[in-house]
Order: sequence, then structure tokens, then C-alpha cells
Amino acid sequence: MELRELLLGLVIVWLAAKLAGEGMERLGQTAVLGELLAGVLIGPAVLGFVRDSEILHALAEIGVVILLFEIGLESDVDELIRAGLQSTVVALVGIACPFILGFVLAAWWGKPTLVAVFVGATLTATSVGITARVLSDVGRLQEAAARVILGAAVLDDILGLIILAMVTGLVQTGSVSFATAALILVKSLAFLLLAIWLGIRFAPTLLGWVGRMRARGSLIVYAVLFCVLLAAVAERIGLATIIGAFAAGLILAKTERRAHIEEQIKPVADLFVPIFFVTVGMKVDPTTLNPFTRQAGLVLALLLTAVAIVSKLAAGLAVYRRGIRRWPVGVGMIPRGEVGLIFAGLGLANGVIEANLYAALVAMVMVTTFIAPPWLKALYRV
Amino acid sequence: MELRELLLGLVIVWLAAKLAGEGMERLGQTAVLGELLAGVLIGPAVLGFVRDSEILHALAEIGVVILLFEIGLESDVDELIRAGLQSTVVALVGIACPFILGFVLAAWWGKPTLVAVFVGATLTATSVGITARVLSDVGRLQEAAARVILGAAVLDDILGLIILAMVTGLVQTGSVSFATAALILVKSLAFLLLAIWLGIRFAPTLLGWVGRMRARGSLIVYAVLFCVLLAAVAERIGLATIIGAFAAGLILAKTERRAHIEEQIKPVADLFVPIFFVTVGMKVDPTTLNPFTRQAGLVLALLLTAVAIVSKLAAGLAVYRRGIRRWPVGVGMIPRGEVGLIFAGLGLANGVIEANLYAALVAMVMVTTFIAPPWLKALYRV
Repeated sequence: MELRELLLGLVIVWLAAKLAGEGMERLGQTAVLGELLAGVLIGPAVLGFVRDSEILHALAEIGVVILLFEIGLESDVDELIRAGLQSTVVALVGIACPFILGFVLAAWWGKPTLVAVFVGATLTATSVGITARVLSDVGRLQEAAARVILGAAVLDDILGLIILAMVTGLVQTGSVSFATAALILVKSLAFLLLAIWLGIRFAPTLLGWVGRMRARGSLIVYAVLFCVLLAAVAERIGLATIIGAFAAGLILAKTERRAHIEEQIKPVADLFVPIFFVTVGMKVDPTTLNPFTRQAGLVLALLLTAVAIVSKLAAGLAVYRRGIRRWPVGVGMIPRGEVGLIFAGLGLANGVIEANLYAALVAMVMVTTFIAPPWLKALYRV
Repeated sequence: MELRELLLGLVIVWLAAKLAGEGMERLGQTAVLGELLAGVLIGPAVLGFVRDSEILHALAEIGVVILLFEIGLESDVDELIRAGLQSTVVALVGIACPFILGFVLAAWWGKPTLVAVFVGATLTATSVGITARVLSDVGRLQEAAARVILGAAVLDDILGLIILAMVTGLVQTGSVSFATAALILVKSLAFLLLAIWLGIRFAPTLLGWVGRMRARGSLIVYAVLFCVLLAAVAERIGLATIIGAFAAGLILAKTERRAHIEEQIKPVADLFVPIFFVTVGMKVDPTTLNPFTRQAGLVLALLLTAVAIVSKLAAGLAVYRRGIRRWPVGVGMIPRGEVGLIFAGLGLANGVIEANLYAALVAMVMVTTFIAPPWLKALYRV
């Protein structure tokens, strides 16, 4: 790839991402939706402004690692524990229902078992970022329902990553067996618990050393180095890189330098995360959803979306505590956001799902992410 | 390139850069020297820990663009004008002497005219960053001599970039003619003046729009977008990308958002600039300077270094104002730093200079950068 192509590619990706993202924010939506649409538009399937090159792919990969690191940094393991049993029940129902319904739908549609598992897994994700943003917009972040949603969403992130690790492992072994799935589950849990235990034990000492360094920029470089190292280790033992990045964020969130790291990672994330979302959009071929020529693709996308919405609303029914409204909890769990996209992208990269299923899954993620904010706002306006 | 190789490569590059950089800072030197040595060490010529892949090259390219953007942001065109005639005379002598002496040395050594021009051009650079850091360390930043040095160094940066543009253009046309050189000189000056004039005219309006955007991270993304756009334009019209990045920095330095942009670009630079310096070191094959087998390479490196030192000391003789000491001015101009490395790297990439000349030039840059800080400190201690 020529230098000029790289520079022009970055200019187009950033400009399209920011303009479309800004447009979506003005419509009361999240910028992520705009970045995805921008990707579909400038990608090879529509305008063809930017080629999906190896270097752009690498920058997108850095972007998603930084994104999960940042989500980890913003997660509070203690708060999660405080949210307690009610959140756990909601999270578990909100994972089980979409997985089972998605699996059944895909299997009924004639997909092989492995693909059906993948579809079910993609439906389990919850985007904590989008819901948290809306709740904060309507000024209800401190309510009991909000705490249940956020606790369940963070738990969903962790469980979702474990499911992702299991699915990735199943893809690599090529078969779906209970023993393999159990092995990967144990490996993921062991990795997360060991990394977090070792990290929380030794991170303060290491950060103390870093604090005594005189060279400029030591904190941010060592923090990202730690994140990339855990990502590489996770990849080495057969898990997804983002699990390592998320664990690194959770660990550093427990240190006293958290605020400094968050502040310094922000501009880096601002630059690289949109590249990830734009490339996710670029891989979508919207013609597979054309209602006039390929009715099957569109029908599948609609069915997936319906299942995605209904199955997360069911999580709201798992609210048993008095004084917590069920509808906001259910609706708050609907947006799939970035986690769902990471699932779909991994499936495409590993050859598990083909282009039309990928497009249907991305469409499902976009619709769920699109409808949740106005729906949630409407519920609170009543 | 596999994802794992990219992640592990980044871990090794960052760890080596930070450890060696920290060591150099402790020795009273600049971290850049450590990053270069780290690159030589982990590169293919010595330990071979990291392969010089296309993606690492692209990240290094982003690093050097960000570096020149940051240098531009920190430069003050007004202060440069205030430093006035004395700085200009020092800068011009400090460019002419190294260029002529370097050219004569390379031609006498039997190099073709184009290579000799390149060697002369590489010797003209002055690293404002390193000298400014030392002057600030010894608390003399406000002295008349310091102002002359810094004014001359910034002017050297601009003149050096124009020389670089001319040399790059000559390499592309393949011949050295007065007409070509004059054309590129006019083109570079026109680009810089036009970009800066248009930029200073319209940047406040554009930044006003950016300031009204609601999406997260708009300022940093639009600032870097502007930098990459000017870099791509510079490359398109046959100049070096870093000229565009430098111009973008100069323009945004004149706006009221300068401090915000500087603050947010810092962590990005902290992460990407070391990748550039490490890859510069990785391309050095130290065996070409082995005194037992290749005496010619070492002798050339020593001669280049001697010429580099003597010719910049001559710039000190251009001090005509009373009350300004000549030695600190001359010594302060010696370190070639990043700009010299960019020259050498471009020469290697374009095939103008071969591996042993590249190694000799990098050695020259390292020695000049190494000796200037203690020498300058010693001069002020007397």
C-alpha cells in the first residue's frame, strides 16, 4: 500500500465518520450508528472510496483493542458486585433468551450448528455505553432501574466475552462439542480471574515504578503496552484479543492512576475507534438486503431483529424487586452496539458466516441500537 | 502479517524504546538516542526480534507525521520574526557550511552528484527540540544566546524541509539540474506560504464549527485530519509528507485552540513517535561500521561526524551582536536529531543511498546528538 493511499484513506475515513457521527448525534442517536453508515457508504460495496487494505485492518484492530481497554477502564467491578443478585438474574436471562432464540431461528433457517451457535452468541451482547448515555441524557442514571441495567450490561460484557472466546475456540477446532466448549469456558474464566488477580496484586508496584520514570509519556505507553501484551497473551492461548484488552482495563481501573490513564487514552480512542466502526460498515454489502432481488436476506435480517428485541425484553421480566419498572430494564438491554459488531466481524473473518448473514447481523445491530434510545426516552417521558 | 505478530511487535518496540529511552534520560541524554539504540538492537541486523513489516512501517510513518505536526504546533512564527536578523544569519551560515562541506566530502569520497547533494542536505538539519531541552535544563532559555539559537533552529527546520523537498524532487526526476531545483524551491515556498496564509485565514472559522460539534473527540480528530490532509497534499505535489504536517502544526499554533490540541496530541505522539525512531534504528546494520572488517564505513562515519560538528560551530562565528557568546550558539546548533534521521531514512527508502552510507549518517546523527548536551552544559558551567 502506498503512503499516499494510506493518508488519503485516513482522511476519508475520519471525515466520513465524524460528519455522519455528528449527524446521528443531532438526531438524538449515538455517533456509532453514523460511523457504521459512513463505512457502508464509502466502502467497496457502494461508493468504493476506500479499499479494505491490510493496514486499515491493522489500524481497526488497534481501534477495537483500545475500545475494549477503555470500556474495561470505565467498568467498576465493585459497583457490579453491589448491583447484586437482581442484575445477575437480569443478565443471565438476557443472555440465555437471545442465545436460545437466535440458535433456534438460525437452525430453522437451515444453517449448520456452528453457524447457529454463532448467531445465538451475536444476539447475546448488550452495549452498556449506549444505554448509559441515554440514561444520563434523561437524568435517570441514579435510579434503581438504571443501576440494574448497568450492572446487568457490564456482566453481559464479561459473559459475552466468555461466550465469544468459546465460539472462537469452537471455530478453530471446527466442531461443536460439549467438552471443547467446557474447556474454553474454563480457560477464559481462568485467564480473566488470573489476569485480574495478578494484575490487582502487582499493578500498583509496577505503576509506582512507572511513576518514577523521567522520560516523557511513560504512563500512557506502559498502560497501552500492558493492554497490548494481555491482548497478545489472550490471542496466544486461543481467546479473542479484546478479552485481554478488557482485562487490562479492569485491572488498571482499580489503580490510583485510573483517571490519568483514562484522560490520556481518550484522544487515542477518539482517533482509532472510529476506524474500527467504519471498517465494520465497509464490509457490509447492502445489496444482500435489497428487497427486490434478495428477499431472503431482508427477511432474515427482519427476523433476527425481531428475535433480538423480544428476547432482551424478556430480560425485563426477570425483574423481581418491587419498585423497579420492567419496561425500562428490558428496553435498556436491547442495543447490541459494538460488542455485537465485534462478534459479527470475527465470524466473517473466520469464514463461519457468509456475506449475507454478516449484513443481516450488522443490520440487526444497527436497528436495535437505533430504536432503543428514543424508546427509552419515551418510557421515561410518560 | 498476522495479528499476533503485530501485537507482539508493538509490545517489543514500546518496551525496548521506553527502557532504553529511560536509561538515556538518566544519563542526562535525550530519550531519542535510547530509542534509536533500541531499534538497532532489536532490529534484523542484531537480535532480529522484530521484522520491519509494512504495517510497522505505516505506524512509523504516522509517527513521524504526528512528530512534525507537534513540532509545528510548538513553533511560534511571531517569535521567530522577533529573533530577527541575527538568527537568520546564524541559520543561513549553519545551513550553507554543512551543505557545502558535506557535498565536497561525499564527492571527494567518490559518490555521484545526487548522493553528494543528499549527504550535504542531511548535514544541514538542526534539532531544535534537543537544544531547547538542554537550555531549559541549565535555566538559560531566556538568554539572548538561547533566543538566537532557537530562532535559528526553527528557521533551520523550515529551510531544512525546503531543502528536503528539493532533494526529494531531484531524486524523483533522477537528475540534478538548476532548473529543477529552482522549480521545487518555488513550489515548496508557494505551498508553505499558501497553506499558512489560507490556514491562518480560515482555521478560526473551521475551528468555530468544530467547537459547536456535539460528538465526542471532534477537536482532536479534525486537527489530525487536517494534518494528514496537508501531508497528503504535500506528497501529491511532490514534496515530503512531513512538510504538510509541519505546516498544519504552524497554522493551528496560531489559533486559540492551540493548547487543547497540544494537550490531546501528546499521548498520541507518545505512542507513535517512538515507533518511528525505533524503526529508524532497525534499518541500521552496525556491521557496516565494524572497524575490523569494513574500515571504510567507519572512516566515512567519522569524517561525516567531524564535518557535521565543525560546520555547525562555524555558524557560531556568524554571531555579530555584542554580548552574545559564540561557542554556545555554535554548539547549540550541532545536534541533528530527528530531522537528520528523516533525511537519511528518505534517502534509503528512495534508493539514493545504500546501507553503509545510511549507517554512517545515522551514526553521525547519534554522535552529534550525544555530544551536544554535555558540551553545552559544560560551556554554561564555566
